[in-house]
Amino acid sequence: MATMSKLKWGMIGGGEGSQIGPAHRLGALADGHFAFAAGALDHRPDVGREYGQRLGLDADRSYGDWTEMLSGEKAREDRIDLVTVATPNATHFEITKAFLEAGFNVLCEKPMTMTVEEGEEIVKVAEKSGKICAVNYCYSAYPMVRQARAMVRNGELGKVRLVVTNFSHGHHGDATDADNPRVRWRYDPAMAGVSGQFADCGIHALHMASFICDDEVKTLSADFASTIPSRELEDDAMVNFRMEGGTVGRLWTSSVAIGRQHGFDIQVFGETGGLRWASEQPNQLIYTPVGGRTQVIEKGEGGLYEDAQRLSRVAIAHPEGFPLAVANIYCDLADAIRGENRDGLPNAAAGVRSMAAVHTAVESAKDGGAWLDARPSIFR
Amino acid sequence: MATMSKLKWGMIGGGEGSQIGPAHRLGALADGHFAFAAGALDHRPDVGREYGQRLGLDADRSYGDWTEMLSGEKAREDRIDLVTVATPNATHFEITKAFLEAGFNVLCEKPMTMTVEEGEEIVKVAEKSGKICAVNYCYSAYPMVRQARAMVRNGELGKVRLVVTNFSHGHHGDATDADNPRVRWRYDPAMAGVSGQFADCGIHALHMASFICDDEVKTLSADFASTIPSRELEDDAMVNFRMEGGTVGRLWTSSVAIGRQHGFDIQVFGETGGLRWASEQPNQLIYTPVGGRTQVIEKGEGGLYEDAQRLSRVAIAHPEGFPLAVANIYCDLADAIRGENRDGLPNAAAGVRSMAAVHTAVESAKDGGAWLDARPSIFR
Amino acid sequence: MATMSKLKWGMIGGGEGSQIGPAHRLGALADGHFAFAAGALDHRPDVGREYGQRLGLDADRSYGDWTEMLSGEKAREDRIDLVTVATPNATHFEITKAFLEAGFNVLCEKPMTMTVEEGEEIVKVAEKSGKICAVNYCYSAYPMVRQARAMVRNGELGKVRLVVTNFSHGHHGDATDADNPRVRWRYDPAMAGVSGQFADCGIHALHMASFICDDEVKTLSADFASTIPSRELEDDAMVNFRMEGGTVGRLWTSSVAIGRQHGFDIQVFGETGGLRWASEQPNQLIYTPVGGRTQVIEKGEGGLYEDAQRLSRVAIAHPEGFPLAVANIYCDLADAIRGENRDGLPNAAAGVRSMAAVHTAVESAKDGGAWLDARPSIFR
Amino acid sequence: MATMSKLKWGMIGGGEGSQIGPAHRLGALADGHFAFAAGALDHRPDVGREYGQRLGLDADRSYGDWTEMLSGEKAREDRIDLVTVATPNATHFEITKAFLEAGFNVLCEKPMTMTVEEGEEIVKVAEKSGKICAVNYCYSAYPMVRQARAMVRNGELGKVRLVVTNFSHGHHGDATDADNPRVRWRYDPAMAGVSGQFADCGIHALHMASFICDDEVKTLSADFASTIPSRELEDDAMVNFRMEGGTVGRLWTSSVAIGRQHGFDIQVFGETGGLRWASEQPNQLIYTPVGGRTQVIEKGEGGLYEDAQRLSRVAIAHPEGFPLAVANIYCDLADAIRGENRDGLPNAAAGVRSMAAVHTAVESAKDGGAWLDARPSIFR
Ligand SMILES: NC(=O)c1ccc[n+]([C@@H]2O[C@H](COP(=O)([O-])OP(=O)(O)OC[C@H]3O[C@@H](n4cnc5c(N)ncnc54)[C@H](O)[C@@H]3O)[C@@H](O)[C@H]2O)c1
Ligand SMILES: NC(=O)c1ccc[n+]([C@@H]2O[C@H](COP(=O)([O-])OP(=O)(O)OC[C@H]3O[C@@H](n4cnc5c(N)ncnc54)[C@H](O)[C@@H]3O)[C@@H](O)[C@H]2O)c1
Ligand SMILES: NC(=O)c1ccc[n+]([C@@H]2O[C@H](COP(=O)([O-])OP(=O)(O)OC[C@H]3O[C@@H](n4cnc5c(N)ncnc54)[C@H](O)[C@@H]3O)[C@@H](O)[C@H]2O)c1
Ligand SMILES: NC(=O)c1ccc[n+]([C@@H]2O[C@H](COP(=O)([O-])OP(=O)(O)OC[C@H]3O[C@@H](n4cnc5c(N)ncnc54)[C@H](O)[C@@H]3O)[C@@H](O)[C@H]2O)c1
Repeated sequence: MATMSKLKWGMIGGGEGSQIGPAHRLGALADGHFAFAAGALDHRPDVGREYGQRLGLDADRSYGDWTEMLSGEKAREDRIDLVTVATPNATHFEITKAFLEAGFNVLCEKPMTMTVEEGEEIVKVAEKSGKICAVNYCYSAYPMVRQARAMVRNGELGKVRLVVTNFSHGHHGDATDADNPRVRWRYDPAMAGVSGQFADCGIHALHMASFICDDEVKTLSADFASTIPSRELEDDAMVNFRMEGGTVGRLWTSSVAIGRQHGFDIQVFGETGGLRWASEQPNQLIYTPVGGRTQVIEKGEGGLYEDAQRLSRVAIAHPEGFPLAVANIYCDLADAIRGENRDGLPNAAAGVRSMAAVHTAVESAKDGGAWLDARPSIFR
Repeated sequence: MATMSKLKWGMIGGGEGSQIGPAHRLGALADGHFAFAAGALDHRPDVGREYGQRLGLDADRSYGDWTEMLSGEKAREDRIDLVTVATPNATHFEITKAFLEAGFNVLCEKPMTMTVEEGEEIVKVAEKSGKICAVNYCYSAYPMVRQARAMVRNGELGKVRLVVTNFSHGHHGDATDADNPRVRWRYDPAMAGVSGQFADCGIHALHMASFICDDEVKTLSADFASTIPSRELEDDAMVNFRMEGGTVGRLWTSSVAIGRQHGFDIQVFGETGGLRWASEQPNQLIYTPVGGRTQVIEKGEGGLYEDAQRLSRVAIAHPEGFPLAVANIYCDLADAIRGENRDGLPNAAAGVRSMAAVHTAVESAKDGGAWLDARPSIFR
Repeated sequence: MATMSKLKWGMIGGGEGSQIGPAHRLGALADGHFAFAAGALDHRPDVGREYGQRLGLDADRSYGDWTEMLSGEKAREDRIDLVTVATPNATHFEITKAFLEAGFNVLCEKPMTMTVEEGEEIVKVAEKSGKICAVNYCYSAYPMVRQARAMVRNGELGKVRLVVTNFSHGHHGDATDADNPRVRWRYDPAMAGVSGQFADCGIHALHMASFICDDEVKTLSADFASTIPSRELEDDAMVNFRMEGGTVGRLWTSSVAIGRQHGFDIQVFGETGGLRWASEQPNQLIYTPVGGRTQVIEKGEGGLYEDAQRLSRVAIAHPEGFPLAVANIYCDLADAIRGENRDGLPNAAAGVRSMAAVHTAVESAKDGGAWLDARPSIFR
Repeated sequence: MATMSKLKWGMIGGGEGSQIGPAHRLGALADGHFAFAAGALDHRPDVGREYGQRLGLDADRSYGDWTEMLSGEKAREDRIDLVTVATPNATHFEITKAFLEAGFNVLCEKPMTMTVEEGEEIVKVAEKSGKICAVNYCYSAYPMVRQARAMVRNGELGKVRLVVTNFSHGHHGDATDADNPRVRWRYDPAMAGVSGQFADCGIHALHMASFICDDEVKTLSADFASTIPSRELEDDAMVNFRMEGGTVGRLWTSSVAIGRQHGFDIQVFGETGGLRWASEQPNQLIYTPVGGRTQVIEKGEGGLYEDAQRLSRVAIAHPEGFPLAVANIYCDLADAIRGENRDGLPNAAAGVRSMAAVHTAVESAKDGGAWLDARPSIFR
């Protein structure tokens, strides 16, 4: 629980019944860093206004839409310190850009934009504004993921040779349910854009690989499949890649892997050791030094790196889960807003890199797995 | 996040650096049911007052001690709706009793009291006051524990024949650290009372057995050991028991089980099936129907019982951990305060039953494992 | 595969359709140490003779009963080097004694005898004969169990404080099947003797505790239950014990633990570390040094103790299972017959200690868990 | 243990100190189907002759080399019924061909040949000879792998959409050991041929995918890496493929995945369910019906398919491991020799398909991951 005066937080999207809204509210409020001060929560103005008030917002700060919120907040002395953009993907660019330009710190849901060009623009706008533009790659905020990154950075694995990551679940594997609108839009280019499962889940895994390896994806080759034939976009993808520093990467993502519930894991292999982390047992990190025995590193044990310690709330072997990983993003944001650098926070550069990887993978898959440069032009 | 006006919450104990304080604050505030309104957080009045204000309490509600808080809050119109007692064990009785008698709802940390007599008095005081007196057996609030209980209640296991539970960790297994005051007091009768490990961890397991089996411990036989010889109280205990309904029980608790990190699990075996749950993988419940295959029941899957659904925040396979189990106790409390019966809430009866079991186990262990009635006299 | 001339092996019991017969044949023959030379395989002379010949025995060495076999083999120059006794429990004493007295080496199935007196007699007879009398506590021959014992012996755990072992399965948990003769006799004192599940499975666990701790059970206190009421003998038992060296022991065994398939595991906790081994993952040993991280010790890794290396056939992470644990008993027997001391072989002393523990546990359970001396009189 | 007269078995290669020799001898002899009758065990004639006799071969059947053995056995009435070829890869073709042509049944180690052309010739020779030519894809003989195949064949998964398999270990991950001759030859084209890790381990996984899916690989795209730069051949490979029936395949194999010990697993996802099997827990098969709960299928449980039952020796939850999987290949061979069709036996067609896949993958990897036809020409 924070011991300073609270920061003011606003939210766009995340209305009643939304999927990710509750995780943001729990995450933002769990540790007491933020007070919920403003919102434009729903695509239906009245519904959003009413719901915001039910959640405790003042009537004049429970807005009907984001443009109203933007002008309302800009006009106030006690304007919000941070706005979360948790609307559908196609709206992220416009909203994020507008708030950054008006001088607000932003936490944008993934994917940050729909195109690489938009992403590059966000990077520039963020830079120019001097404000924080973070992207919600929340899995990277688990304590043991931070520990993994610190181990790599501190050379505990030597040079990283290979990173292998999967984000494969089976929740869209039922063909008899494929026309259910809740599922269907995800594989329809009119609504989801150029990519289905890779853009939705794969980019979490791709970001994680970069994050832990402390390196960036340079080239990639992709194989996409629509295993349920009525789908235009892929429900299964394999992406091989190479990082700037030469690390070989392998990423499998699927939504038809029946029996895998969440199915997000990562393995990192270096010259002097290997690591394994899985999102369903997030409080353990499995480590093997070359020539030695496999060991279990536990969240909360002594001697962990700073980020791993700081972002854990309860004692060893008391599990912490997904909502508190989201809360860790907000902890880092609070610190960053207050002036403490938190380089673990995924930023707009990470956001545009993801979009470049998505578009490159789509192109590669169409082109028989051709190896292509996966970097946005501003990072070549 | 709650959509009604918030309840007001106060806390006694849980000062800066305390072990359980942060979990209560996170738990009480996570879902937005409560606002933190008052506190007497430290045994040093000035330190407590200052810390309370740092946590955002108004100066006049950040009290120096609990008696001051009691009279302060009693005098207010906007008095707190709930007080949490998270002070050392020996003070629970006095504070809990005083607040109940003054008409406050109380969440008391375990163990509720030091003696059975005190416990029986709390039961009576709570009854007379008409107020809620809950005890923080927080593990019982995990969604999959609630699912287990509902399965038993609904006859999915048939009559329960056998319950086997362990709460064994190794964190006090280092004899070279045994004189560290942080560890030592726990095995010193002058400070810990009649029992060490059984009173500290064993009663969580014993409560869990009763909770899931929906039955009460009737008789028990105990074997205690101080495996580190300098300890006067037990650091390892085995308790066999019988429940009112005839179920056989076996409970092992240890603090010298080096390599077990948290080590709390329970297995329930009935006529038509078996269940297994473990605190380190709290989001899964393992179920085997007699003659059938072992199955994994996942938090968040379809068709779970009401409590298991209600007390889960995020989708299937997104883990939730210990702090949110504590938060679930506060969810139930908020509902109960607002008039909705939540029979999953551990109450004063559960608290006194635990104390009776502790004292009976101590006596039995001294008496060579004699089988004794483990019930408080008011429940015989 | 052995590179010396083969030893000659005979078998009593283990006829067609028997449970343990195939494991003995596989175990005895797997490594090429023994040739199958004689047998009296069935309680029906003709059936046994015929089956023995089908298995490749010469007609004159496929005997109708064990007395015939005894006189037949005694009369031969090329008499068998080892006889395995795998008949029902009540016959073990008589057969084992007769063959020892006639100068044969014997591997006797567990339990070695029905009474302590018989067991003590076997010890004496074996001693007098100078022949090997081994008992088939085959789990103790898994490489990683031998590793565990060597670690304890070499002080890697410091003084052992506590050993906790379970052998609990659910295969007799179906009350609707309880009258099936295949199951029923086990809980009928007329056929099974004084104890059901403890004598059948519990003694494997008790032997394992002694074996790994390199110590002997001194006193015990037991709690028995017949959770299926029609059973006269126990189907669930808890035995607390103390070893000669002061180690505290806890043993749970059950046949109604629905969902546990084999369910045999052991945990050993000493001053400087803890170990865990489970029969369903027999190729790994889990080790935690005090204050350190949990490690996985793999069968086949470098640097294991001699017995662990010697009794493993294939490379690291290639699993070996139960039949090859039985084969390891035969490897040790072959070496012992050829004159190389193999102190890992469970002997007649181990056999009589088990019987003393069984009878003591029965008595203790009847006497409300009284603590009793569990040693056979010859070892007091 | 077999109940008929034994078949006669011979072996080429597998001399003293060889890696795979002991597994073949254990496998061939474990169940009593075969008697070891002839051998040419070492590349040094004298050493081989001497070792064979130590293993119990008659002097005149312990040959100095395979040509001697071929003429010796051909000349005998009691010639061997089966010969195992367990020499280094480059010799498989010549030896296998010669023995088939002379009318012997052959079990050839993998890879069956070095080139596709050789493989195609073996197929033809085997066909013409009417003899059995099996290839030792021994993992496919685990009972639960047979169960998986039977489930797929019987439609329990619906049409198979996706198969994902890994065979990744870390045993060649130590660069400081890379010049060790024991390791080095594997990555040297002069000795290993066109491929390193994929030809060594990858083809086991590829065969397994075909075996369980009951389908054949049609096209593939590969990405190879030599993560230890001194290596000319790949130590890490990813192969995407498509099967004749449209199934999407993904295969990752590595020898630098430090911390993975054996690391061979397979996941199969169909329209109505998913399966998972791992070589380190070979006795369980994990199954999830679409929309249902994940279940554990245990070796030895009731109701398994015929092959899964037949190839298991001991009761449920008694593990069986790698040597007995090899033994299962010999069980199938014994049956096949005696005239009972065992279609689970990997045959020469499987052998040549593997070689075609290896050569295609090498070419694809060189060609930037191009999708190529992976079938040998005789199967196009
Ligand atoms: N980081 C993660 O792990 C994660 C997980 C799930 C979703 N997401 C991302 O979160 C975003 C939202 O996803 P979701 O699953 O919650 O969607 P959802 O459809 O469940 O909810 C969207 C919410 O936004 C509101 N909304 C839509 N347009 C709006 C507008 N113009 N102004 C204000 N509100 C508007 C809707 O009324 C609704 O309440 C997506 O970008 C998604 O990719 C991220
Ligand atoms: N439910 C659980 O899982 C769980 C876990 C840990 C502790 N506990 C229980 O919580 C209670 C507190 O344990 P802890 O480990 O946090 O102890 P602690 O010693 O870490 O902290 C105790 C706190 O209470 C304060 N305090 C002491 N006396 C006080 C008084 N008279 N008035 C106000 N404040 C006072 C101290 O200043 C300190 O801040 C114990 O009863 C313990 O058994 C429960
Ligand atoms: N070590 C272990 O893990 C283990 C496991 C299972 C059984 N056992 C022990 O093995 C023994 C046999 O058990 P089982 O389950 O195989 O029994 P079973 O009833 O399946 O088979 C017993 C066999 O012995 C034969 N037999 C009976 N009396 C005979 C006699 N007088 N002479 C010759 N043959 C006779 C029967 O015809 C039958 O073939 C028991 O003592 C049991 O406790 C040990
Ligand atoms: N199926 C599997 O899982 C598996 C596992 C390991 C090895 N293998 C295969 O088994 C084969 C042997 O591998 P290994 O690791 O045992 O090799 P190794 O080098 O350990 O042993 C080879 C043996 O063959 C003998 N030999 C060599 N040339 C010979 C010749 N011309 N005639 C007679 N004997 C000869 C050698 O003296 C030696 O004893 C290889 O093809 C390998 O791919 C398969």
